[in-house]
Amino acid sequence: MPIVVQKFGGTSVANAEKIKRAAQRAINAFKEGNQVVVVASARGKQTDELVADALELNSNPPKREMDMLLSTGEQQTVSLMAMALDSMGHKAISFTGTQIRMMTDGAHSKARIISIDADRIHEKLDSDHIVIVAGFQGMDDHDDITTLGRGGSDTSAVALAAALNAKVCEIYTDVDGIYTTDPRLYKKAAKMDQISYDEMLELASLGAGVMHSRAVEFGKKYEVNIHVRSSLTNDPGTLITEEVPKMEGILVSGATIQKELAKITLVSIDNTPGNAAKVFSHIAKAHVSVNDIIQVEINAEKANLSFTLAKSDLIDAKKAIEEIKEEVHCESVFVRDDIAEVSVVGVGMRSHCGVADTMFHALSEAKVNIDSITTSEIRISCIVDKDHGEKALIAVCDAFELDKPIDKRSN
Amino acid sequence: MPIVVQKFGGTSVANAEKIKRAAQRAINAFKEGNQVVVVASARGKQTDELVADALELNSNPPKREMDMLLSTGEQQTVSLMAMALDSMGHKAISFTGTQIRMMTDGAHSKARIISIDADRIHEKLDSDHIVIVAGFQGMDDHDDITTLGRGGSDTSAVALAAALNAKVCEIYTDVDGIYTTDPRLYKKAAKMDQISYDEMLELASLGAGVMHSRAVEFGKKYEVNIHVRSSLTNDPGTLITEEVPKMEGILVSGATIQKELAKITLVSIDNTPGNAAKVFSHIAKAHVSVNDIIQVEINAEKANLSFTLAKSDLIDAKKAIEEIKEEVHCESVFVRDDIAEVSVVGVGMRSHCGVADTMFHALSEAKVNIDSITTSEIRISCIVDKDHGEKALIAVCDAFELDKPIDKRSN
Repeated sequence: MPIVVQKFGGTSVANAEKIKRAAQRAINAFKEGNQVVVVASARGKQTDELVADALELNSNPPKREMDMLLSTGEQQTVSLMAMALDSMGHKAISFTGTQIRMMTDGAHSKARIISIDADRIHEKLDSDHIVIVAGFQGMDDHDDITTLGRGGSDTSAVALAAALNAKVCEIYTDVDGIYTTDPRLYKKAAKMDQISYDEMLELASLGAGVMHSRAVEFGKKYEVNIHVRSSLTNDPGTLITEEVPKMEGILVSGATIQKELAKITLVSIDNTPGNAAKVFSHIAKAHVSVNDIIQVEINAEKANLSFTLAKSDLIDAKKAIEEIKEEVHCESVFVRDDIAEVSVVGVGMRSHCGVADTMFHALSEAKVNIDSITTSEIRISCIVDKDHGEKALIAVCDAFELDKPIDKRSN
Repeated sequence: MPIVVQKFGGTSVANAEKIKRAAQRAINAFKEGNQVVVVASARGKQTDELVADALELNSNPPKREMDMLLSTGEQQTVSLMAMALDSMGHKAISFTGTQIRMMTDGAHSKARIISIDADRIHEKLDSDHIVIVAGFQGMDDHDDITTLGRGGSDTSAVALAAALNAKVCEIYTDVDGIYTTDPRLYKKAAKMDQISYDEMLELASLGAGVMHSRAVEFGKKYEVNIHVRSSLTNDPGTLITEEVPKMEGILVSGATIQKELAKITLVSIDNTPGNAAKVFSHIAKAHVSVNDIIQVEINAEKANLSFTLAKSDLIDAKKAIEEIKEEVHCESVFVRDDIAEVSVVGVGMRSHCGVADTMFHALSEAKVNIDSITTSEIRISCIVDKDHGEKALIAVCDAFELDKPIDKRSN
């Protein structure tokens, strides 16, 4: 029998009524002839409340204990969901991460999944149970409880779908799918029927915020069909999947903006092999993660080295740069924290030119100055003044017709 | 190094301030040269809240899922306690019942402890950690989470003290020890310095309410010194231990009253071997637990059979009796739900007479009519009209000088 994994986020299980609604969805999928595994997050704002309880006792709580604490939120939801299913006349059983041997490494608060013991789940599915698994949590090889970090329940669900060879992993959320861009910033944004893993990864890491990139990476690695859809309606949402033929003609799938960004430039460093590596390995030691790197040669001996990073990492990064700047003969350091990055993403870019041209033209028409440009195989990003960010996004969306579903566009 | 187990109930860990106070107690015991294991209950009214959440979804929640839900309360407390200890500069680690292999049978909501893996606890104690264990919970051999029922955290603590061969198991509570009787009913009640397991068992099962009888049974079986004391002061409380010589002269240690009691009499049943067994095995099948049994012969063929039971079981019991009454040729059934049972308890009764006499005399002086009397080796109970219950208790307490500590009494 085909297996469906359904994941419900915190807002979709926030109270008894919503838990029942989620349970009803699971029953519907079961009645359609599927075996059903539900993955649930902590209810509503519960994780936030537990974090507040912890901080009241310890401003820097040990991560192992924090995982121990936070994992209770999901455990409560899954047992309540099993009770709801039981009262609706359906066999159900809940499991913690420990109980299904969701083995992870020992990196508390951001653990990575290593393996899952699917046997106990299959056994219960085969005896007509709906199986409910606590998202976000696993255990390491010391029997300690771990958590998977932000968006962890999505990752749990996709990992389970992979381990169970599920036909689809449905992610129920409070939006009805993935949009070409953030509808709060571009009201005309269109919902996408499907999107490739690679595009979604660019969108997720650029701040689209609907799904965490680790879950998408997992989906890509194990070829899990991920269906992002609304918990409030029965309408189909957006399918995240391999590239499909009809997508090939499309140059740009979506656009994003990142606002909480900073940029550091090391002016006139020695342009010798290994110098950039020195800078970035030193920054990595400070646990600062770098977004994009731009190096521009000034002459044969000297270059300007810039990189973007989350604004929240700026203090740590500046400190690290101060420590290394003499070693790489940097003349001065220039920091901007008043920038935004506008990006367009699309697998079609791989085999087409003209996207950059369209984007620059649109920004120029909108009188937006471009600070710098970075590209990947399926993405073009422009750094602009923060004050011009939203204007820039709208201009780019209009230029690429992101107000229309993919099959209605002229490009 | 000696090991001390400290158990903190829900009211003693209800908020951040109280958790810190409990943590400080653990640190103090550590600084006095002990290895320290803390057992904690769920915070404040949290268990009640979780039960309410469950009942909102299912009026008769599956017990396995209820255990899964309720066990989160203790898990939250222990992780928060570990964070508190960490912030106070002390090494600490929390464990769930699962993590220390607190193995139980599979009787969800009232599981019995089978074994504990003390190795992981010893390992952490030996590296100077204060170890914090979630009370009330265990796991069965299906890896399912179980709970130990009412008073379960006391049982967890005493069982751990036994498994670790601790010198004492300290039960911190909101009263400062065990009293000769309920101070709310007899204002002059005196605190006892010590009491034997057997006496405490009679007092606990008769409704003294300070400690659950299963914890005391465990303590008796493994000879654990149990120290019931206040979480608000440093004064010593009451030590529950083996009989000690100085207690031998004392006839009566304490007195109790049970008000939520009913009594059923089967009038004139056949007085043949096995007839009473038939009645009580049928009642047991209805999950009604019987307190005391009184059988009185009417003649060679007939007897009256009475038993007392919790008033909450009365409906089930009456139904069971209706089913069996013809089989045992019972003439009629007589039910009283307006009774109270007043008892005196004391190991000294074993080798002394005169206690019953003193008790009956006191009740007679107080003009309390005695419905019936039952005794055990260390207890005498009188069933009286409920309206006379408190008056009877006070008369008995005065007669046995229960307003004085044991060594100040004249008897």
